[in-house]
Amino acid sequence: MADLAGALSAYLHGLGERLGPQLQAAVARLEHAYTPELLEAVQYTLLAGGKRVRPAVVELWAQSVGRPRPAEVMAAAMAAELIHTSSLVLDDLPSMDDARTRRGRPCCHVRFGVDTAILAANAQLMLAFELLGGLDAGHGGLGATALLADAVGVRGMIGGQHVDLRLPAQQRDLVRLEYIHSHKTGALFVACARLGARLGEASAGEEELAAHYARNLGLAFQIKDDLLDATGHAAEMGKDARQDRGKPTFVACLGYAESEEIMRRLLDTARAALDRLPAASAHLRSLCDYLAARRS
Amino acid sequence: MADLAGALSAYLHGLGERLGPQLQAAVARLEHAYTPELLEAVQYTLLAGGKRVRPAVVELWAQSVGRPRPAEVMAAAMAAELIHTSSLVLDDLPSMDDARTRRGRPCCHVRFGVDTAILAANAQLMLAFELLGGLDAGHGGLGATALLADAVGVRGMIGGQHVDLRLPAQQRDLVRLEYIHSHKTGALFVACARLGARLGEASAGEEELAAHYARNLGLAFQIKDDLLDATGHAAEMGKDARQDRGKPTFVACLGYAESEEIMRRLLDTARAALDRLPAASAHLRSLCDYLAARRS
Repeated sequence: MADLAGALSAYLHGLGERLGPQLQAAVARLEHAYTPELLEAVQYTLLAGGKRVRPAVVELWAQSVGRPRPAEVMAAAMAAELIHTSSLVLDDLPSMDDARTRRGRPCCHVRFGVDTAILAANAQLMLAFELLGGLDAGHGGLGATALLADAVGVRGMIGGQHVDLRLPAQQRDLVRLEYIHSHKTGALFVACARLGARLGEASAGEEELAAHYARNLGLAFQIKDDLLDATGHAAEMGKDARQDRGKPTFVACLGYAESEEIMRRLLDTARAALDRLPAASAHLRSLCDYLAARRS
Repeated sequence: MADLAGALSAYLHGLGERLGPQLQAAVARLEHAYTPELLEAVQYTLLAGGKRVRPAVVELWAQSVGRPRPAEVMAAAMAAELIHTSSLVLDDLPSMDDARTRRGRPCCHVRFGVDTAILAANAQLMLAFELLGGLDAGHGGLGATALLADAVGVRGMIGGQHVDLRLPAQQRDLVRLEYIHSHKTGALFVACARLGARLGEASAGEEELAAHYARNLGLAFQIKDDLLDATGHAAEMGKDARQDRGKPTFVACLGYAESEEIMRRLLDTARAALDRLPAASAHLRSLCDYLAARRS
């Protein structure tokens, strides 16, 4: 398992090295003499070096089911990271989670102001949809735009974030927490896996396996965040730790040990989905181990 | 001209009657037991009865160049109104224009809070892209998603809004004001006209005529807003008047009379584009007259 973890680390590092310049170039193509500060804000959180897990899910599922065109997979991976970063910038706003630190730096709104942060986040979102629209134009039946718009919207991340912000603490039970996490985090994981699978020309059954894997991985990912938040140190996490204190989480509802047990069972379920796809990339399995072990 | 204006009014009223229930139904389809307040916020500004000028530009250009499928035109018109409303909700935020009233009601953030307003605006945007993605899927080569993502993003509305928020007053000259207005307002008009033209299977030349018309109409529209803002009454406009006081506008740069003259010349240019398309809807011409005469 140590070798697999090392191989996954090397893969994620390499993916980050391929993704960074492409993202930078895509933003730079929007250049205009009047918009340098806006573009700086667009690149600021985007290029601060996230873990690039969502682009990995896109690429690894594409490669697990077929022989996709690399340029299409890269465009889809970029869109996934743009959408994820956009949601981080918005979630961190004073009116939302009121965070100060993200990816080891001051948050976008701390550095550039709330107005620029909102515009930068939506500029990232629009750049993602330009890429998705390009994919749909070149690849009939892909449905990339509708898939991701749904995952970001009320039935996905936005719906989850609204319930997370507004649900009174005393009404938070496991069913609602599962709703929040599966929407805030799970919906984008599922859309990334589906998009990757479609780029690899997956059968309907293979796409459902991808979605099933990602649904369980995504929920486990968020529970791991709760676990880290309960014990983590801001410096290691690169963002504000204990931000959720006082806000019911899986750990607050169930305690640390049982939350960890649920996370492990979700990851077992994700692995079991991979068992049904003999050609699945070994990195998809390693991602489950990596998630359980990560410290930030 | 009185008859044409009456015909346009009747057309816009009818379009609003057709659009409202479709928008309401599209939002209602996102329903979930946990999201009633979010969906209320999504519908709040959307169904408060705007002038529906952008959906009209989509539909009238589609009908002027061809025989488009009504369901496709309606989806595109809905997307145009969703994107426009989304931009109003964000522009009104305390960190942006800090407005209190919109479409005759308290602004979305005044009624629902800043966090919900941001989420509702982006939910509107995502619903628009679901519709656009559906159009692209059914209509190869339409390029609706990429067209509108570009119009909303850094090269369009977001770029214009950022310069408007951040450019120091003493650096505002006509070139920069034209940049701000043509991006904040013009970009979406142009995209609406292009999208309509494409739905009507326009030739490349017809699509360029549509873009030329919309570019001039959009800039005139914004100058008319400056004119109204310089003299208008909040009650008539349904939004805060004199919001731009102290912020250089065309009126501040050139005076009222010259700004009005420029607006008239832009509308003449828009009309001249229509002269080159014999089948152009008479409503497109009336829209120029309507814009020059409107009081809100």
